[in-house]
Amino acid sequence: MLTIDFWYEFASTYSYPAAMRIEALAAGQGVAVRWRPFLLGPLFADQGWRDSPFNLFPVKGRYMWRDMERICAALGLPLKRPDPFPQNTLLAARTAQALPEPARPAFSRTIYAAEFGEGRPISERGAIAQALADCGHDAASVLAQAESPDGKAALKAAVEDARALGLPGAPCVVTPDGEVFWGNDRLETAVEWTARGGGQNRDTTCL
Amino acid sequence: MLTIDFWYEFASTYSYPAAMRIEALAAGQGVAVRWRPFLLGPLFADQGWRDSPFNLFPVKGRYMWRDMERICAALGLPLKRPDPFPQNTLLAARTAQALPEPARPAFSRTIYAAEFGEGRPISERGAIAQALADCGHDAASVLAQAESPDGKAALKAAVEDARALGLPGAPCVVTPDGEVFWGNDRLETAVEWTARGGGQNRDTTCL
Repeated sequence: MLTIDFWYEFASTYSYPAAMRIEALAAGQGVAVRWRPFLLGPLFADQGWRDSPFNLFPVKGRYMWRDMERICAALGLPLKRPDPFPQNTLLAARTAQALPEPARPAFSRTIYAAEFGEGRPISERGAIAQALADCGHDAASVLAQAESPDGKAALKAAVEDARALGLPGAPCVVTPDGEVFWGNDRLETAVEWTARGGGQNRDTTCL
Repeated sequence: MLTIDFWYEFASTYSYPAAMRIEALAAGQGVAVRWRPFLLGPLFADQGWRDSPFNLFPVKGRYMWRDMERICAALGLPLKRPDPFPQNTLLAARTAQALPEPARPAFSRTIYAAEFGEGRPISERGAIAQALADCGHDAASVLAQAESPDGKAALKAAVEDARALGLPGAPCVVTPDGEVFWGNDRLETAVEWTARGGGQNRDTTCL
């Protein structure tokens, strides 16, 4: 089965609607999804940014929040800003990484629903433990794995993978032939690209 | 007839495919398009950027050029990078602004085709004069108007309008009810929003 990698960051606003809809979208085209949590912070730091670009560049930030309102309204998703924005997502990302891959979607959607659907903080251990419990996991043991040296190293390796792929932000879909599609609004294109056979349409006269 | 404002900048890569397809897209939904040239430079300077963000942030730039290849291939548009990128687009924008609005689309597409379809420089007076002549205009008289105090003031006013609207980049569509949609990949959404009656779907529980 053709599989796309879905790269997401828990602090990323546009990753929220993407996470909520990518499974149904991909399944409709016979494409499987592998969930790849990562952190944007280290990649943004490469570009000299020490905060979300939506905070650093207020014009972009104002646009993004109105755009998110429209997108969520169209999808029937609630939207409430967490305070502060962005949340510290280190523990959430380590936890998603520590879960077996098939358990990541439900946990990740639970975090997004709390963070952007209800505006609740998700930086603290208690919020992560609650989400794990809500998904039927033994929170203590998953958190122990997430915070172990192996757990920390696993997320660090994921961030290195994201850097090597040149991901410009989140969410991103990486197709089986290595194409990167950035943004909630490019999910359809990424899935169709994959379903149509990946790179077959790379043979163009375009550049 | 419902009319959207299409805000574009001649140095903006994503404005190229948008300019090539927006008329047919809008007409298909019974929506008219008013072409509004502007300059991103002054707006980027507000954010501390003195160059294209695609040059300032190479990860974004690499992504954008590959993304443009895919988009142009899908649309059957040629793509060749102008050197240098970005081109100085002051005269092109003043000229588009100086033309009567109905004459702007053809002139603007001619500039984009030269700049991004053929990779030719469009910063110099000769290139602008050629594009004007190709579109059946008296180049000398249009250029005289474009470079007159009134012509310069008209573009400056357009940039002020863009700043007041909070445009985060180009291309942007502004709908009759004042919504801003940013990006070539949001043209469909903007046109559908307008055709469905503008702001009627602002009444949501979202946020």
